[in-house]
Amino acid sequence: MDSARHISIYDTTLREGSQCVGISFTLADKLSLCQELDKLGVDFIEGGLAGSSPKDDAFYTEMKNRPLTHAKLVAFGQTVRPGVSPEEDKMLAALVGTGTEYVAVFGKTNIDQASEILGVTPEENVKMISETVDFLVKAGKKVFFDAEHYFDGFRVSPEYATECLKAAIDAGCFMVVLCDTNGGVLPFEIDETVKATLQKVPSLRDNFGIHVHNDSGTADYSTIEAVRLGANVAQVAVNGWGERCGNANLFTVVPNLTLKLFYDTIPDLSVLYDLAHRCCETANVKMFEFSPFVGKYAFSHKAGTHIDAVRKNSSSYEHVAPEAVGNSRKFMLSEQSGRAAVIAKVNELLPRLGCNSADAGVIVDRIKELELEGYRFEGADASFEMLVKDLLGIRRSWFKLNTYKVVVFDDAGNDGPSVTASAIVDVTVDGRREITADNGIGPVDALDKALRKALTSFYPQIRDMYLIDYKVRVLESRLATESVVRVVIESSDGSRNWCTVGVSGDIIKASFNALVDSYTYMLDNTSL
Amino acid sequence: MDSARHISIYDTTLREGSQCVGISFTLADKLSLCQELDKLGVDFIEGGLAGSSPKDDAFYTEMKNRPLTHAKLVAFGQTVRPGVSPEEDKMLAALVGTGTEYVAVFGKTNIDQASEILGVTPEENVKMISETVDFLVKAGKKVFFDAEHYFDGFRVSPEYATECLKAAIDAGCFMVVLCDTNGGVLPFEIDETVKATLQKVPSLRDNFGIHVHNDSGTADYSTIEAVRLGANVAQVAVNGWGERCGNANLFTVVPNLTLKLFYDTIPDLSVLYDLAHRCCETANVKMFEFSPFVGKYAFSHKAGTHIDAVRKNSSSYEHVAPEAVGNSRKFMLSEQSGRAAVIAKVNELLPRLGCNSADAGVIVDRIKELELEGYRFEGADASFEMLVKDLLGIRRSWFKLNTYKVVVFDDAGNDGPSVTASAIVDVTVDGRREITADNGIGPVDALDKALRKALTSFYPQIRDMYLIDYKVRVLESRLATESVVRVVIESSDGSRNWCTVGVSGDIIKASFNALVDSYTYMLDNTSL
Repeated sequence: MDSARHISIYDTTLREGSQCVGISFTLADKLSLCQELDKLGVDFIEGGLAGSSPKDDAFYTEMKNRPLTHAKLVAFGQTVRPGVSPEEDKMLAALVGTGTEYVAVFGKTNIDQASEILGVTPEENVKMISETVDFLVKAGKKVFFDAEHYFDGFRVSPEYATECLKAAIDAGCFMVVLCDTNGGVLPFEIDETVKATLQKVPSLRDNFGIHVHNDSGTADYSTIEAVRLGANVAQVAVNGWGERCGNANLFTVVPNLTLKLFYDTIPDLSVLYDLAHRCCETANVKMFEFSPFVGKYAFSHKAGTHIDAVRKNSSSYEHVAPEAVGNSRKFMLSEQSGRAAVIAKVNELLPRLGCNSADAGVIVDRIKELELEGYRFEGADASFEMLVKDLLGIRRSWFKLNTYKVVVFDDAGNDGPSVTASAIVDVTVDGRREITADNGIGPVDALDKALRKALTSFYPQIRDMYLIDYKVRVLESRLATESVVRVVIESSDGSRNWCTVGVSGDIIKASFNALVDSYTYMLDNTSL
Repeated sequence: MDSARHISIYDTTLREGSQCVGISFTLADKLSLCQELDKLGVDFIEGGLAGSSPKDDAFYTEMKNRPLTHAKLVAFGQTVRPGVSPEEDKMLAALVGTGTEYVAVFGKTNIDQASEILGVTPEENVKMISETVDFLVKAGKKVFFDAEHYFDGFRVSPEYATECLKAAIDAGCFMVVLCDTNGGVLPFEIDETVKATLQKVPSLRDNFGIHVHNDSGTADYSTIEAVRLGANVAQVAVNGWGERCGNANLFTVVPNLTLKLFYDTIPDLSVLYDLAHRCCETANVKMFEFSPFVGKYAFSHKAGTHIDAVRKNSSSYEHVAPEAVGNSRKFMLSEQSGRAAVIAKVNELLPRLGCNSADAGVIVDRIKELELEGYRFEGADASFEMLVKDLLGIRRSWFKLNTYKVVVFDDAGNDGPSVTASAIVDVTVDGRREITADNGIGPVDALDKALRKALTSFYPQIRDMYLIDYKVRVLESRLATESVVRVVIESSDGSRNWCTVGVSGDIIKASFNALVDSYTYMLDNTSL
């Protein structure tokens, strides 16, 4: 194993990620991601297609004033259009105009596609590659040549595919990147093709890049396999974001290369878990929590026997230490949890309680009942704590809710924002009754504001608390609007966060239950 | 390539899937999944751990009266407990009591874990394997021996790991299954270990099973690689469900083996897309729509240049024909779509319109604006149709909404169900005003019922329509309850389904917008 070798991580998120269904980066998103990736220590960051949209052009302009500390920004483009000289090509002019030291251009290397997609002869396509690279090199650029459709192109004609590579190399490109563009090539064929290519084009030995799509579900391993065969640039994307099934995943490829094969990649892997989740917030998409290494559930244990085994020897059910990638071991509470898991969890949350086996039995039974109703305590530790206190008769009642009312009125006939949501809350604390009301953007917001108003008069510390996330899950959705709704709320007091859960047929009631748990948890855990 | 070879698909969903975070199968769910898998044509279906819970025991009892048409049911268990004879072991008794012809037992093959987890000597562990298999064979069972931790066990001691296999084989087991239990082994090491094992235990040649977890993100390919080396049983799970990062995915492994490597697996792959989604409904979890082959987005194209290329030659961006797995090509509408994509989409939905380039320009601009507000038309074709008709001035106004009011009242002091939600809707149709009201489970349900009551008096065909799905997505959730909410509703008239989308700061308004689009679409598309 060539363990000391440095593998350059080349991130394509700003280009490929924006082609992912559900993702639509703003300029601010792109600038923020770029900064995060630079801080992470990747060697190359690819921007969007130069000249294709005002947003991407604005990105490159903005980046001129924001020097990166480590990474090189790579502007992305394509070979010259057929029948035009590079000097006349507007997209190439835009590419040069980005002002980056490095550029990447993709060109076809599949003989069939040159004619079918571009409508040119094989010779013209080779000339286009050659002229494009030559033009960019003369403009002072270091050029990555992305050999599009290389692996299926090699299947059709190995001679032609390698001729295209040689044209780019002879024109002075900085590096050739072999691409599995439609993601259909399995790793053993990646292996065979790379080996055959290195035979035909020896100058690529230990000096080429790899770029793989995930349509076969094997992009991460194909990338790793190419690195084992000598690739020294691995093109990946944050969370594997990309068109169709996505691209090789930065957060899977890098830990495998680094922790298992001991290549040198980025300086610190322990930031990966947080980064993966922060990028989802920036892109406003949901994290896939079953992702290897950085998913919330990647090191979670649910079966009682596995929980038992992991406590004896963590490697039995953990392939690497979760902390190595900034993740952590989780014992999930569910109807499958034995009493031992419940005792461990209660003692973690409420160490003074000294939870015993009889208590745990009562708790397990109640969890099973509540799970049937739609509750999940797997992530909602604060609601679990409330539940345990309830069952053990030690939950303090900070306030008594008498009633609440919510009124939503939509005067659809008028122009402008027409909806009003109002809530009235009636609570009693220590015999004193407080009735408050407030308006909000939607019924849950109105209810939260009214309840907060009522409670703050008794407990001023509630002012420090705010909601940071609010999620709604519809269960048994075949019943459509009559479904059961599960609401998960994440709250914070500035120094720590906690999650609560509420379930009801009515979304307002479910939200309210989660709010009440959250306020109660805050009051329970604040020293007065 | 050994293309005619039959590979038995062995589904472990009922066991591994139930250890997946977020999944909690009911007995009915298990019976339903079992039936689906039998119909699919897998060769083996593994149930849960026999003797571990009333639910799993009820499952095996129930299955005695429900013969499978093709698949063999495999009851799951483990080697005898240390210090007990097989005859005295309650779990083995439960395993025998399931009445299945086939059983699977897992046993340790890692010399370190035998002592650390089980607390027995290496020799005792081998004896436990041998006695267990012998006992079950004598009870008339065909026994799969799941060699737990085999690959990391082989790393520690190849001699001991293979000695365990030989013990099971000598005791008459039906098949040995090599397991990567903690999912940490990369495919090249799977490859090396399988080859070395076949050297040491030649009787396994072309006669062993493979079982891999996905902690490294490479379970699917490790499974494929083992098949290429001679495995003839591939253990997989529906949608890759399993503990931590899951198991090898039935819907990735089977199409790769069948469509790319031409092995004989199951009779008809064209049912896979529907099955993958139906299983999610049964398990009540969200489908990961970026999944290879069967994800909704697996063959979706968003970038304008890709849409153009796919129309010229589908293999440019599609590794297999989507129809082969029951999926379909999708051109996604987004701010990245060029006019050509919009024209194609409009002509697909509204062929009589003859959408031209100027129209398409107006539509693209409006889509960009609405996407900024939080709309996504990617899956909501009915709302897209409404939008196009609006912009082209051809949307028929079936009713005019004057106002709606929603009141939710929670009398928390009482026992029993305490929430009342009521809605009042005021609409005008052809100058006739109708004010209706209804109660519901939650505000959206109440609103839907009141609106339906109002419209049905004018348009009786609305009686045929019903909602089949209702989804809520909170956007920019850092603002918590003040977030923007996107609601997607799926409706049906019994013969076809359609999706609509609504966005607002207020969940009720967002739901109402989606409902209005849905009713309008239904009225537009029903012949009177």
